[in-house]
Amino acid sequence: MALQTLYHSREQEILDDFLTFLRFASVSSEPEYGLEMINCLEWLQHYVEEIGFTTEIWPTSGHPVLFANWEDAGRAAPTLLIYNHYDVQPPEPLEEWVTPPFEPTIRNGQIYARGAQDNKGQCFYVLQALKLLFAKHGTLPINVKLCIEGEEECGSHGLMEVLNAKRQQLQADYLAVVDLDIKSPTQPALTLGLRGIVTFDLEATGSKIDLHSGYHGGITYNPLHALVEVLAKLRDNEGKVTIPGFYDDIVPLKKSEVDKLAMTFDPQGYFDMCGAHATGGEKEFSPYESSWLRPTVEINGLSGGYAGSGFKTVIPAKAHAKLSCRLVAGQDPDKIGKLVAAYLEAQAPEGIDIAVTIRPGGGPACRSTVDSPLTTAFATAFAEVFNQPCEYIASGGSIPIISALAETSGSQVLLMGLGLDSDHIHAPNEHFGVDRLEKGALVVARGIELLGATHS
Amino acid sequence: MALQTLYHSREQEILDDFLTFLRFASVSSEPEYGLEMINCLEWLQHYVEEIGFTTEIWPTSGHPVLFANWEDAGRAAPTLLIYNHYDVQPPEPLEEWVTPPFEPTIRNGQIYARGAQDNKGQCFYVLQALKLLFAKHGTLPINVKLCIEGEEECGSHGLMEVLNAKRQQLQADYLAVVDLDIKSPTQPALTLGLRGIVTFDLEATGSKIDLHSGYHGGITYNPLHALVEVLAKLRDNEGKVTIPGFYDDIVPLKKSEVDKLAMTFDPQGYFDMCGAHATGGEKEFSPYESSWLRPTVEINGLSGGYAGSGFKTVIPAKAHAKLSCRLVAGQDPDKIGKLVAAYLEAQAPEGIDIAVTIRPGGGPACRSTVDSPLTTAFATAFAEVFNQPCEYIASGGSIPIISALAETSGSQVLLMGLGLDSDHIHAPNEHFGVDRLEKGALVVARGIELLGATHS
Repeated sequence: MALQTLYHSREQEILDDFLTFLRFASVSSEPEYGLEMINCLEWLQHYVEEIGFTTEIWPTSGHPVLFANWEDAGRAAPTLLIYNHYDVQPPEPLEEWVTPPFEPTIRNGQIYARGAQDNKGQCFYVLQALKLLFAKHGTLPINVKLCIEGEEECGSHGLMEVLNAKRQQLQADYLAVVDLDIKSPTQPALTLGLRGIVTFDLEATGSKIDLHSGYHGGITYNPLHALVEVLAKLRDNEGKVTIPGFYDDIVPLKKSEVDKLAMTFDPQGYFDMCGAHATGGEKEFSPYESSWLRPTVEINGLSGGYAGSGFKTVIPAKAHAKLSCRLVAGQDPDKIGKLVAAYLEAQAPEGIDIAVTIRPGGGPACRSTVDSPLTTAFATAFAEVFNQPCEYIASGGSIPIISALAETSGSQVLLMGLGLDSDHIHAPNEHFGVDRLEKGALVVARGIELLGATHS
Repeated sequence: MALQTLYHSREQEILDDFLTFLRFASVSSEPEYGLEMINCLEWLQHYVEEIGFTTEIWPTSGHPVLFANWEDAGRAAPTLLIYNHYDVQPPEPLEEWVTPPFEPTIRNGQIYARGAQDNKGQCFYVLQALKLLFAKHGTLPINVKLCIEGEEECGSHGLMEVLNAKRQQLQADYLAVVDLDIKSPTQPALTLGLRGIVTFDLEATGSKIDLHSGYHGGITYNPLHALVEVLAKLRDNEGKVTIPGFYDDIVPLKKSEVDKLAMTFDPQGYFDMCGAHATGGEKEFSPYESSWLRPTVEINGLSGGYAGSGFKTVIPAKAHAKLSCRLVAGQDPDKIGKLVAAYLEAQAPEGIDIAVTIRPGGGPACRSTVDSPLTTAFATAFAEVFNQPCEYIASGGSIPIISALAETSGSQVLLMGLGLDSDHIHAPNEHFGVDRLEKGALVVARGIELLGATHS
């Protein structure tokens, strides 16, 4: 039976199982979801074993990694390692969800839930692809290993810890990272690069107690003012990051690679999707150049003082910010982290202490191996399934672990996925298309068939 | 019996009653405390009636005002209107209180509770003064009216609404506002001026949904960046407010008034009290000049994006700030409010909408009538009770209603109180001294005796 016919014959069961996967509130960053993480992992382990894989749980100091392998294709056949993650972002703000984040609901062909796309949707169609191949052929044409971690959304510390010890088991010819996007539901694409990331906590302290803004306003330096003044110095009027040395180590893409990239930006489409204008980058670069090929500093959270519906005339003792940098090839997360922290601390006005902590879990940028057999096979698979030539894009996002995972496993990398900008990942009302769940399964299954054919 | 002997003879009962008053969580700014507000008001009304006053509850669109009067001193005797409030600030952050904010506790001679000083403590010693006078003389030497409102901490809207309708009842020769401070527990002081206030909500909007800071960082303008950049433009490197026209209308104090003010600032004492340095004002002015005689813009709250213990790589759709200006004589709250709002909105970068709302409840600065019989009587009373000459200070705080209340009642104003900077008002662990509760009662009782003597 053809792959698509097979998929259609079991679609109801596939959707039922997917909704079960989505019901686990597997939020990795908040301790209160610990039990949900374990329940999700155990369900997933059982599901992968049912497909025909051998599984192992790799404990870590944080959330465990699910490793699975099927290597009956033999030593002559190549080995493909596929990376996904079973953890999701926190669901807040809860009040903005039309339906609750962990009660998945299908509306107008879209499945709404936290993780529906990132990354449970993309993980789940990989599993369906493997099921389809077993159903069609009774076997797989290549050896396949799965590495499904539980801390992608909070820094991949656990996987990073065990990489060295698991080096042998992770060895592979190819690594497919299935956590990326396409630019429209009808246009297939492979991703040539991901940005790196380093994240920070900043605390500004002015006093040991909260103070009354009448009695103390004009005497003490308000840490909220210090915070905005210091953070306002991160970028200049041209959108450039002002931190000395920030751009020094960038290794630009080759022109031949840049030329492959589909960088046409549609301002109206962007506005329709998210209500924003493309005014945020360095002025000398186009939106996709800024997002794909240039590093950033972004504030991800500000807090301090009173934030209720009323008013409180307070000068708080402390104010806080959360920051992140996206990095491009050549930029070392540790080095940039120290540059940013030192710069911000040095801007503290007299009377205010600014303390910046570099959070663990950063990682460098990484790139797909552009001309590998894996990339060629998946580009062809995408073109067949979508009936449309595959384009090449990059991503402004980060999967900090990938660069280390590629090195440990000795693999050529492919970054792929069927996400859309409009999926609202990391935001309320995250969703993934029922159609893309199917297309994802078909692309991965067909890509594995083609990769097998290359080597046979 | 002498006033002090009388006080001592009933001190346990006084403290018991005070703790009862403090147990009401009469937070006016948050709707969930509505019932506590009413319970507090009814208890207070009963308490004032027991002293011998006739009472009225004045309903408003917000929290009611308690009005009370005793006018048996006759038409020839002067009338003193005393202003206090029974509402308190929100208690957050709750986790920083050593004992819960509405379970008053006495430790080392200090009474800890939200409102212990501001203003329940200062209100309660006024009531004890009246009880002492009735106990000592069986009557009062002057007519006394009490205006105890329930919205001082959230803008005095209700009292403002009814002022005109109650003009006749509020008529008085003198108005004593008992909500102010002294600079040390042993140094009596009267307050010559209060700053005015106008408060704002600011909302910066960048998109209609929260966005992923990887995919969108470098494309859209992050409203958190817009917020810090715009707010950083409020003040220059000299600490001056940069808003055009902000300082234009200031009417300085006369030199003879400035010369009366005890403006010596003790940096070490300030640091010991609150852990802050006096680096926050305009550089050309001393700390007390800045706090008493100069206007400010302060940020009182920042919020937006992720503020949990983990991390979320989000570019939020919106970011928020709460701001206030303290005003000095000559500055009109409406005019300054519009200047500030227009300035901030005009700073919005392309792609970001900044909307500033002027909150209701602002009010102009006000000043004591320096040479009135009331001021003289209370300066003498203070000197007698503390055995120390009374000094003159000003306050950076605001009681926006006072200027309107003074005008409506036709009174000469005196601003007084026994608060201390170290009382932690508006902050966790607010407290008031058992000794100051007594001294406050003695000062007010003696001040009323002396004022009566002036007119007899």
